[in-house]
Amino acid sequence: MKIGVFDSGIGGLSVVKSMLEHSLFEEIVYYGDTARVPYGTKDKNTIIRYGIEAIEFFKNFELDLIIVACNTVSAYALKEMRDISNCHIIGVVEAGILACNNSLQDKNSNILIIGTKATVNSKAYEIGLNKNGFKNLYAKATGLFVPLVEEEIFSGAILDETFKHYFKDIKQNPHALILGCTHFPLLKDELQTYFGKDTKLIHSGEAIVEQLQNQFKLSKKHKNPKLRFFASENPDALKKIANKWLKLN
Amino acid sequence: MKIGVFDSGIGGLSVVKSMLEHSLFEEIVYYGDTARVPYGTKDKNTIIRYGIEAIEFFKNFELDLIIVACNTVSAYALKEMRDISNCHIIGVVEAGILACNNSLQDKNSNILIIGTKATVNSKAYEIGLNKNGFKNLYAKATGLFVPLVEEEIFSGAILDETFKHYFKDIKQNPHALILGCTHFPLLKDELQTYFGKDTKLIHSGEAIVEQLQNQFKLSKKHKNPKLRFFASENPDALKKIANKWLKLN
Repeated sequence: MKIGVFDSGIGGLSVVKSMLEHSLFEEIVYYGDTARVPYGTKDKNTIIRYGIEAIEFFKNFELDLIIVACNTVSAYALKEMRDISNCHIIGVVEAGILACNNSLQDKNSNILIIGTKATVNSKAYEIGLNKNGFKNLYAKATGLFVPLVEEEIFSGAILDETFKHYFKDIKQNPHALILGCTHFPLLKDELQTYFGKDTKLIHSGEAIVEQLQNQFKLSKKHKNPKLRFFASENPDALKKIANKWLKLN
Repeated sequence: MKIGVFDSGIGGLSVVKSMLEHSLFEEIVYYGDTARVPYGTKDKNTIIRYGIEAIEFFKNFELDLIIVACNTVSAYALKEMRDISNCHIIGVVEAGILACNNSLQDKNSNILIIGTKATVNSKAYEIGLNKNGFKNLYAKATGLFVPLVEEEIFSGAILDETFKHYFKDIKQNPHALILGCTHFPLLKDELQTYFGKDTKLIHSGEAIVEQLQNQFKLSKKHKNPKLRFFASENPDALKKIANKWLKLN
């Protein structure tokens, strides 16, 4: 299977990393819209337009499947992207909801969703989780986490104060925390420490792998997949980060 | 005089505010590239391309002057924008350098420049200040200030820790601090407190007004200028923020 992975920037590499760890595909084409990142502060119509343009980009390749690794795009643009695409498209929001469903036995579990402003405003996670019977949902836009990760601030006083700022109203540690942005797994150790070891962290990359394994019965392993990286600006910078994050060299 | 003001997003409104306070123009056309903001984390070639596209946008209007209110664009794209424009273009970096020159008598003054990663990497302020005889320059990319302002965090523990993080190496309070990003004037009170009252803050909007008054001998006052706001996404959101910031209603 030859697949495309789309993200607003570099964050989707965390999803690629999960897929590589499970040797799922023989070829992965990654496209990051680095010239217009971030999407999480932008308008619904803009996000849909950018999603459609990504599908146009992927039409240059003969793909079997497109994975939308960006939560913001998954929350707003999946329908419009599917309407103009010939191949199957799955998104991280759907995958995250399925992962909650599979890992939480009790429908009364408290679930905290964190994401960009756009993702949280979409209520995409709440709507999906509600349909699956979960009622105790709380969502918080934690927009500062994105630039903190991009500045490589993964611990320390700024992060501690930012946690306090965003989570001051959370009186009870959640049973599950949905990391609703591909940047957030880079803060997972600190988040786990903050909320305690009993909080289950839902990670987009692992959730996608779980969905793919269940939905597509991917039994064959591909140890050395072909990887191609494209970006709307400075693809060399993206390739450099990919080599570092994915330990390709 | 009918002028255009260009910024990557909403930050340039702080420059418009300064111009309105001095009643300098009869008509201002503002264009914010909100669909692709921020520029400060992007690549030189992308910034130049976006600057050129802004000039194309302004060709729909008969302008006498274009003010580039974005430090990142001023640092990288002014030459390329001038090459394709029929009207005069001035930028905030140039204005900031002139303002330093006018307000600091001693060429040995310590000047601290803060800005986005792209602005600081360009060394545009240092090159210009060097030409004016200033030698004691120190530049620091303070990228987190942008999302902090956008999250309306103008004081408190996160900001205090962010100041410590960025300024821990600054042993001596600077004689002047160049606020090299249009978002930063919103942190000016806190920055003034941090560095002390003897540090002169150089504000892009005030610097532009000073340059305009010196260069164009704008004596006539325009009490009720015509204002028009355009944005590459969601112009209504921009107009709403403009009404609030500029107290238009």
